[in-house]
Amino acid sequence: MTEIKNQPIQTFLDELASKSATPGGGSAAALMGAQGAALVSMVCNLTIGKPKFAEVEAEMQEVLGKAEALRSQLTGLIQADIDVFNRLMSKYALPKDSDDEKAIRSAAIQEVLKDATAVPMQCVHACVDVIRLSKVAAEKGNPSAVSDAGAAVMAAYGGLKSSALNVYINAGSLKDKVYAEDKLSELEQLIEGVDKLIDDIYQTVKTRL
Amino acid sequence: MTEIKNQPIQTFLDELASKSATPGGGSAAALMGAQGAALVSMVCNLTIGKPKFAEVEAEMQEVLGKAEALRSQLTGLIQADIDVFNRLMSKYALPKDSDDEKAIRSAAIQEVLKDATAVPMQCVHACVDVIRLSKVAAEKGNPSAVSDAGAAVMAAYGGLKSSALNVYINAGSLKDKVYAEDKLSELEQLIEGVDKLIDDIYQTVKTRL
Repeated sequence: MTEIKNQPIQTFLDELASKSATPGGGSAAALMGAQGAALVSMVCNLTIGKPKFAEVEAEMQEVLGKAEALRSQLTGLIQADIDVFNRLMSKYALPKDSDDEKAIRSAAIQEVLKDATAVPMQCVHACVDVIRLSKVAAEKGNPSAVSDAGAAVMAAYGGLKSSALNVYINAGSLKDKVYAEDKLSELEQLIEGVDKLIDDIYQTVKTRL
Repeated sequence: MTEIKNQPIQTFLDELASKSATPGGGSAAALMGAQGAALVSMVCNLTIGKPKFAEVEAEMQEVLGKAEALRSQLTGLIQADIDVFNRLMSKYALPKDSDDEKAIRSAAIQEVLKDATAVPMQCVHACVDVIRLSKVAAEKGNPSAVSDAGAAVMAAYGGLKSSALNVYINAGSLKDKVYAEDKLSELEQLIEGVDKLIDDIYQTVKTRL
């Protein structure tokens, strides 16, 4: 199986649209996040090396480094979402005829459900980081590329809100309620104030267009 | 040059991140919209043909047809954004030494600017349509796929808000102020109430998770 990042965009979209469960919203979320990170990098690359923006050169270099690391992580999460979903489905497919089998199956499902919660949570974390970087790009990057910073923030926001849904689902299926509550509370902390932040960055972009 | 939809995702992201002006936020917006349309189709495809959802079968078939047409249009807009930007840049590169040359150059720029306004406006229209379809998918589609409907609405929203920025920029550079105001007023009408609609759909998704 070709890793998804090496597939043509058209193939990815065709498979996303199909009745096959993967790729689904989780992979799309990671791709949105990766697009957001790429667009932050674009703004940095159109700012760095230009005498006019010498004052923010060092900061843009730092933002670029972070954005590229996040892009790499988020691109990997497109595939990771598929892999963990397939692992989960393989556990649901385990036999459940005897009580022993039921217990083994349930334990296996619960174990993978923790990973299936962790993967979209990583996507949420990375998207929040991309949003913060896009704020710097929008405020200090080359104004010729400010609309790209605006697209960056919206892409990362889409990735964040979409992957949050998968955290809710998978955490909700966990029997370890303490662990689940811990993850849900981590998520709430991460997304608190994000709607307002997005609006602020978008308005900054509009005033610099 | 390979049409962008036939490029691997990794190549697209690398080019998006680079200092090259294309692909940029406009292409990313169209890809977000196309992902949204694909995810609506996915929900339909996971609903259609299942006896449990026979009541909404006809409606889901209709939604699927519309979503697939929008996906095709939005996938084309990934490339169209690049093409119109390159055409615009070629007009800016025209000689401007004499008054005659200046007049020819300016007229050529203004002509292409109308197309450069129309392309992201098509993306806004298509994304609004995807959002409306995602509402039906979220409300009536197979609940097992409701998080995919949630990702659909967020992807289309990202595409809409990102492409709107390119309408603002290009309409703002038009000398034909009547035409520009007409386009900006069309845009305002399209996006009016969308923030509220997105919140409502997202909440619907959360309650059906």
